[in-house]
Amino acid sequence: MPVVPFIAFEGGEGAGKSTQIKLLSEMLKADGIGHIVTREPGGTPAAEAIRELLLSGADERWNARSEALLFAAARADHVARVIRPTIAAGQWVLCDRFVDSSRAYQSAGEGLDDDAIMQLHAIGSEGLLPDLTILLEISQDAAAERIRARDGDDHDRFQRRDTDFHKQVAEAFHQFAEAEPDRFLVISAEQSPEDVHAEICGYLVKKGLVTS
Amino acid sequence: MPVVPFIAFEGGEGAGKSTQIKLLSEMLKADGIGHIVTREPGGTPAAEAIRELLLSGADERWNARSEALLFAAARADHVARVIRPTIAAGQWVLCDRFVDSSRAYQSAGEGLDDDAIMQLHAIGSEGLLPDLTILLEISQDAAAERIRARDGDDHDRFQRRDTDFHKQVAEAFHQFAEAEPDRFLVISAEQSPEDVHAEICGYLVKKGLVTS
Repeated sequence: MPVVPFIAFEGGEGAGKSTQIKLLSEMLKADGIGHIVTREPGGTPAAEAIRELLLSGADERWNARSEALLFAAARADHVARVIRPTIAAGQWVLCDRFVDSSRAYQSAGEGLDDDAIMQLHAIGSEGLLPDLTILLEISQDAAAERIRARDGDDHDRFQRRDTDFHKQVAEAFHQFAEAEPDRFLVISAEQSPEDVHAEICGYLVKKGLVTS
Repeated sequence: MPVVPFIAFEGGEGAGKSTQIKLLSEMLKADGIGHIVTREPGGTPAAEAIRELLLSGADERWNARSEALLFAAARADHVARVIRPTIAAGQWVLCDRFVDSSRAYQSAGEGLDDDAIMQLHAIGSEGLLPDLTILLEISQDAAAERIRARDGDDHDRFQRRDTDFHKQVAEAFHQFAEAEPDRFLVISAEQSPEDVHAEICGYLVKKGLVTS
């Protein structure tokens, strides 16, 4: 892994990605390690405009093919204008979701197959992959409870989908992690946020990326 | 060619595509031939929202990769929700621009290569091609004069590009037509609109699609 890594956080809704990114960012800040925090879809003004198209409107607003192309378009902008320049400038990138989310969400429901998603990623973003992908795993029941506590009944187009859909997404993430054990760190997110953070830190120390 | 064709009109700005579509639509209407008139990017509410993203904003709003993905996303929606159902219902489709515009515009400037555009089209729209593509060709000078007369100084992101860019677009269209002579009908658009229309009608009569 490079000394200045590009780290993506993945997992279903309610797994605690934002919380973990915040905790890691605070730690890096305390250690004086330059980094940015960003998210997908979004991360640039143009990509945020696509995010708005993707997350708002009726459930059937986009079919699976248009949806995959829009995610790839947003990611292409984000990679070209934020992620690659940040890496080139020697700063860490902490990103809330990346291409594995496209793969997992499209594999559930009537989405495109994995080869098609990776072809779009090759064309849009020259196939850039994170150096480390931290997958936060949580049961559907625990996730649903956290989402209710956080958002009430205010759900976007993806959050509104049913339990089977979210279960398929979780299974897809798990398979990606098994297929690429060197790129993925899988952590149970049913622990306290502090324990999850400690596990992440332990891994980064082991890899020589941070000292404490 | 099927008896109920999907016809695309292509060519640079100012070549008279809208005028010719209008004249052909009026003729089909008079003959009682069911058809729709549509356009790209756009043609559905979702695709029109993408059109708005593509045509507005600063010149550098989108890089070539995001742009190609956005066009493919809009086209995927248009094909799935309008073009294929219309063909299935036995109506002609007259479409102002289709995938050849993506190919021509991306080939000019710093766009993606043609294979990448056709890969996006395969993933987004299962590679659907028009039965007939009518290419209206016009010199840059004549086109510029028509655009000035029509729009004054109110130009979108594509119209603002320079003469070299538009010349490359025109050359690309011409090459596509040479490579697929059965799919393309190339017509000089420097004639009067009536003469262009008469040439189109003559071709459709020859193909047995209309009787007059």
